[in-house]
Amino acid sequence: MLDDLAGDFSGARALITGGLGFLGSSLAHVLVSADAEVTLVDSLAPHYGGNVWSIAGIEDRVRVEVGDVRDERLAASLVTGQDFIFSLAGQTSHFDSMVDPFTDLEMNCRAQLAVLEACRNHNRSAKIVFASTRQIYGRPRYLPVDEKHPIVPVDVNGIHKTAGEWYHRLYGEVYGLRAAVLRLTNTYGPRMRVKDARLTFLGVWLRAVASGEPFEIWGDGRQRRDFTYVDDAVRAFLLAATRAEADGEVFNLGGPPSTLREVADLLIEVAGDGRYRLAPFPSEQHAIDIGDYYADYSKVTQRLGWEPLVSLREGLARTLTFYREQGVHYWDNPA
Amino acid sequence: MLDDLAGDFSGARALITGGLGFLGSSLAHVLVSADAEVTLVDSLAPHYGGNVWSIAGIEDRVRVEVGDVRDERLAASLVTGQDFIFSLAGQTSHFDSMVDPFTDLEMNCRAQLAVLEACRNHNRSAKIVFASTRQIYGRPRYLPVDEKHPIVPVDVNGIHKTAGEWYHRLYGEVYGLRAAVLRLTNTYGPRMRVKDARLTFLGVWLRAVASGEPFEIWGDGRQRRDFTYVDDAVRAFLLAATRAEADGEVFNLGGPPSTLREVADLLIEVAGDGRYRLAPFPSEQHAIDIGDYYADYSKVTQRLGWEPLVSLREGLARTLTFYREQGVHYWDNPA
Repeated sequence: MLDDLAGDFSGARALITGGLGFLGSSLAHVLVSADAEVTLVDSLAPHYGGNVWSIAGIEDRVRVEVGDVRDERLAASLVTGQDFIFSLAGQTSHFDSMVDPFTDLEMNCRAQLAVLEACRNHNRSAKIVFASTRQIYGRPRYLPVDEKHPIVPVDVNGIHKTAGEWYHRLYGEVYGLRAAVLRLTNTYGPRMRVKDARLTFLGVWLRAVASGEPFEIWGDGRQRRDFTYVDDAVRAFLLAATRAEADGEVFNLGGPPSTLREVADLLIEVAGDGRYRLAPFPSEQHAIDIGDYYADYSKVTQRLGWEPLVSLREGLARTLTFYREQGVHYWDNPA
Repeated sequence: MLDDLAGDFSGARALITGGLGFLGSSLAHVLVSADAEVTLVDSLAPHYGGNVWSIAGIEDRVRVEVGDVRDERLAASLVTGQDFIFSLAGQTSHFDSMVDPFTDLEMNCRAQLAVLEACRNHNRSAKIVFASTRQIYGRPRYLPVDEKHPIVPVDVNGIHKTAGEWYHRLYGEVYGLRAAVLRLTNTYGPRMRVKDARLTFLGVWLRAVASGEPFEIWGDGRQRRDFTYVDDAVRAFLLAATRAEADGEVFNLGGPPSTLREVADLLIEVAGDGRYRLAPFPSEQHAIDIGDYYADYSKVTQRLGWEPLVSLREGLARTLTFYREQGVHYWDNPA
């Protein structure tokens, strides 16, 4: 998948925060294959995405630091000398952010500030790519949602992720740091968290189908969403990292929209088996649900040449294959 | 100044966070005069606005808690039973927020979350009024700036104050808390912090003139700003507290704009003496200066009937009189 980009990373030094998570580890596999010197830092916080199994096969070719970037000395030592910093650490559960807003504040605000402060003091030349989320838009006022859509978060997570984005813009303007922001939508694929619905409902669906169990769609199944296969997301991070046109910019990622029922039907078709039922929204989820969402991602297409290359059908098929083979490491992972 | 509002506060219980600061103590004086039961909480954090002298004359009629609302048990005990909560605690220095963004995060994000979480768990019926700032608009894209102006903070303080506002909106939408937000511009008057330029340049100017010393205008003195005399600001808080129309709403405060040179000349005229000189911006201030700013405050006029009643000339005269008599407690206060 790298081809044209591999040369930009050969011999380069790259730091990935949240490096044992779904996206972080996927990025690590690709960077290692491009002969980058890769450092992963992950706090392996309980109940979050970190999973040591996710770097199986490259564990001897990456440096892994289990620690917290909020530790000032650790952050300083980690950012020093890096060419690229992929800021993927964070808490991504909308629901958890409402139950425990203070932990969300620590993971999404303080941790981002810590990395940026470390860069300001120890490495102003690294290129930073920050993983943000479509959650900051709140309930869409129009569709598809472009980057100019108002930011009206409907949960604490969206407020803190917005702050995270703005820190990056600000440190660029005031201190000259080079940072790009990607607003992710539902990203899925091998190594995604499937233990529960913290990352995306698609995780629990995939697990259920791979395990031969039924799953639930909350609501009437007519909500429309868009999806990005992990390889496509990784490619977007690499493009944003290498292109100067991305400095100081914010880009939506996205893909063709589908209704939840269409996704469910496609998943069952691809799996050759499976079943689901419609169920009412749990009330605490309903208050922060955003209804239909899909992105206008024409900006990243025009500026960086990115577009999704893997169809939902193909992506679901690859992901199912992965979990049928290796799922046990993801169901039972104690992290 | 209360007249029509006094009845709403007689016997009512009111909590003021940042209660020993400029605005907090001014509000306390008025609430005490309306026979409210007033509790002040203030951390008396070094280098910030808290000053025990500011409640001289009412110290026996208010309950003062020196502590930090980030302490969960303290926050719970303080909010319980209150009818009104005035959330004025916070770090307001733009410059300090860039030097130490972590402290700004604690004081402007964590502290606000702590009060709201305490209300969610222990008192959902209190009316909350939150002090925000025009700083969140960043460099104005048009003038005067109304509440629909884009929010593009140019410093860490603006990012965190935006989060503070959004928490209030969110807790209103999700948990039914009743909260109103006031976006303050340069508020001035007796009891304001004059030790340095942390709150507003006007503080150092007033101190210089009251002490017979020269002061500096940074830049060419043609920047336009607006000003709110403290009694007018207090009245806005009381209106927002008592009017249901304010629930879930955000209001600019403001006043007639003047250039900095006009303000300087007026101050010297009112004082009968004084001098200033133009000086270049310190570079670290220049990066976060926002140029001209003045608010469109027609929304608060239409919805709550608020307008500034004290002219800049009158306000400066009253403030100078205050500092000439009591200034020593504000220059030398060790807090």
